Amino acid sequence: MSMSLKCGLFALGLLGSSLLPAATPEPRPPTMAEVLAASTAEDWRRPDPLSTLYLELASGRVVIELAPAFAPRHVANLRLLTRQQYFDGLAIVRSQENYVVQWGDPAAGTPEARDFGKAARSLPAEILRPAKGLSFAQLPDVDGYARQVGFAEGFWAARSAADGEAWMAHCYSTVGVGRDMDLDSGSGAELYVVIGHAPRHLDRNITVIGRVLWGMEHLSTLPRGSGALGFYEQAEQRVPIRRVRLAADVPTAERSALEVMRTDTARFEQLVEARRNRRDEWYKVPAGHVELCNVPIPVRPAQP
Amino acid sequence: MSMSLKCGLFALGLLGSSLLPAATPEPRPPTMAEVLAASTAEDWRRPDPLSTLYLELASGRVVIELAPAFAPRHVANLRLLTRQQYFDGLAIVRSQENYVVQWGDPAAGTPEARDFGKAARSLPAEILRPAKGLSFAQLPDVDGYARQVGFAEGFWAARSAADGEAWMAHCYSTVGVGRDMDLDSGSGAELYVVIGHAPRHLDRNITVIGRVLWGMEHLSTLPRGSGALGFYEQAEQRVPIRRVRLAADVPTAERSALEVMRTDTARFEQLVEARRNRRDEWYKVPAGHVELCNVPIPVRPAQP
Repeated sequence: MSMSLKCGLFALGLLGSSLLPAATPEPRPPTMAEVLAASTAEDWRRPDPLSTLYLELASGRVVIELAPAFAPRHVANLRLLTRQQYFDGLAIVRSQENYVVQWGDPAAGTPEARDFGKAARSLPAEILRPAKGLSFAQLPDVDGYARQVGFAEGFWAARSAADGEAWMAHCYSTVGVGRDMDLDSGSGAELYVVIGHAPRHLDRNITVIGRVLWGMEHLSTLPRGSGALGFYEQAEQRVPIRRVRLAADVPTAERSALEVMRTDTARFEQLVEARRNRRDEWYKVPAGHVELCNVPIPVRPAQP
Repeated sequence: MSMSLKCGLFALGLLGSSLLPAATPEPRPPTMAEVLAASTAEDWRRPDPLSTLYLELASGRVVIELAPAFAPRHVANLRLLTRQQYFDGLAIVRSQENYVVQWGDPAAGTPEARDFGKAARSLPAEILRPAKGLSFAQLPDVDGYARQVGFAEGFWAARSAADGEAWMAHCYSTVGVGRDMDLDSGSGAELYVVIGHAPRHLDRNITVIGRVLWGMEHLSTLPRGSGALGFYEQAEQRVPIRRVRLAADVPTAERSALEVMRTDTARFEQLVEARRNRRDEWYKVPAGHVELCNVPIPVRPAQP
């Protein structure tokens, strides 16, 4: 599916110009608020509870949607670690200004490191996948980091060409798999979340595993670490993780009932256009463009 | 000045290719750490104390550099407000996730509003300026929001063409002048700072007045407001401003002695290239591109 460029032209003043013959005026394209208000149940989806992770902190719950279509082995390993309660009692160890927050085992690499149980200690990186077979809603706008960018499986994504390779893009709230120097050294036991301007230079360099749907503020407002790369220098500065659970393993009544807007619909195309050209009264100069990571993929409490 | 594309080609594998005749291998371009380490005093500048603002919070000082080359009347008005101690005892009233923090007079628009004294209550917007006469270090990379992007007067900037108009771009840490619906309704009495992914759609819609040089974490980690647009709903949630001062009005011993890297030098060109193609061992796929707001303009404590 490719986004229509038509609406973009309206903002450039081509309609209503005296060069055009008189005609019934085209209606103004909707603003984002109008798109959301007009949306119907079919425009939303409920994330798979087996691909939904709850990171429980003292300040509240962070809800993460995983991306098995892009990183199946890492998602499976993360499920395994989670079900072994690997993360319970571990900590957020790093908060770097305008970059990432990261959690894992502070004792990793020492004899006190937590046992991986049945989970793999490292996995081959899952960075590229075939674009073929992937529903990809392409953004009409230029992007410097990839030939094509858009939305796939509900995530910000990029591809080299329609029949080439696809990968997930690093935007605000993207969740990735920490690794060492070796591309294949990640496992899912250490995860990071983007809390600043999209670090798109990380694209194609590391496995992306999902994105935060809800509760970003519990991560983005954490005190920054004073050590190199934002690591907390004192053990007591680390932010304890109460537990991590798959939504599927939590009683229904305790789940966060959320809906995510589908990205493969005409409604979402309208939303993208509303962000390419803001027509709210406050804006005087519509951009005629939107950068991938400036397109929100809306999330809301599930509607009854 | 235009950035050289030459180094970018190295990363694409053209050097060392068997198609090329044997030759002395070109040295690897420096990484950002190496560029910084090799920099000399001439590569740095000390911001003008008359254009340096200290926002003092209980958690610490936020240092802002103002941009009189882009918004001279707003900068003058802000100096006037500051010297009247207009901001002392006011508050940060808004903290919106992945967007902005904003401060001003919570009583604005009511009879209890603070007096503007000799300062203007509103000013004509200062958004565009002639590109002519402005030293502009152009980024070689494509940008969807402007024909050309780069660096001017030490700030992220954009222009329509070398002889057209120039304006400041909204990146992480950019400081802008809050306004109402009317373009000319801002004064500098209300300011916002970007704390999330660059909202470039604001470019050309609002007056930009500077950027935070130091202490961003005092703003970016503030609790988010629960009201619409991230406004704090209870008065006691607001973050008090102890005082705002021009560095020029603070005793030298109490000033934050900082240096900003010049953006009009060969050294800065090297830094940009180091960000376009990361050659640190950790990176496996250099991007061959950098988005404007992903180029840091380094700041450091002044060297003795």
